[in-house]
Amino acid sequence: MDPIDSLNAHYAAMPPVAAMQVRARGLDGDALALHAPLAANVNDKDCAFGGSLAGIMTLAGWGLLTLRLAEAGETAEVYVADSQLRYLKPLYADLEAGARLAAGTDWPAVLATLRERGRARASIEAWVLDPGGARVAELTARFALLRP
Amino acid sequence: MDPIDSLNAHYAAMPPVAAMQVRARGLDGDALALHAPLAANVNDKDCAFGGSLAGIMTLAGWGLLTLRLAEAGETAEVYVADSQLRYLKPLYADLEAGARLAAGTDWPAVLATLRERGRARASIEAWVLDPGGARVAELTARFALLRP
Repeated sequence: MDPIDSLNAHYAAMPPVAAMQVRARGLDGDALALHAPLAANVNDKDCAFGGSLAGIMTLAGWGLLTLRLAEAGETAEVYVADSQLRYLKPLYADLEAGARLAAGTDWPAVLATLRERGRARASIEAWVLDPGGARVAELTARFALLRP
Repeated sequence: MDPIDSLNAHYAAMPPVAAMQVRARGLDGDALALHAPLAANVNDKDCAFGGSLAGIMTLAGWGLLTLRLAEAGETAEVYVADSQLRYLKPLYADLEAGARLAAGTDWPAVLATLRERGRARASIEAWVLDPGGARVAELTARFALLRP
């Protein structure tokens, strides 16, 4: 299966993610791009719900690492360990999210640690953009990668 | 309307929150307690989805401040500004969340600032407990309170 189709099958299998209608659009350079419609993620003020912004950014980071591991032939489980979020402005449009490895990440070293110790950590940064391309929210997160 | 019923009406009116099946149970001392069933919030590993944990803790903080403002006769809008999350262990049971004002918060001073300037900030701490009462996730967050 195409890796993006496989990722979307994972997302669709999780009830809260299916409810958010999150879909991976694909890799854009080194970033994974996700989309979700505003209607499924709206709050009482007609803008995007903070929990949905947190959710889609976490899913973007999780998806990026899952794709990168698959690309490297690894099958580790990916768990979010901690995160920091900033909500910058309200979003009155569909959620366009992205994630990439945090600046300075040595991915081959992460893979080497995972292969030697059965576990490793990796950090990502993620964001949600408005239709003008401005960030409405951003997240940094650390994930634990664990071999089964 | 009872304040907890009113809060639940707010939650139910937000599609992503309705999908999570979040319900306020009520105030337990100075903490607001929320519940959501695991089935609506499960991930691909049969435990609670990180985005749902982030969402319910954010909603607990939002709900606590909304209740406290109503109690004080204020109608300010409540927006999450930033948050820090820690995911401590997987949760294989329903989500039992709580939130209270951050330690050291001077609530009368927050209300005074809101009344004088039309805006104020308030910080909360929130958590999700497992059936044994251990924390599986925790969050601290700052919210902006804005008079319409």
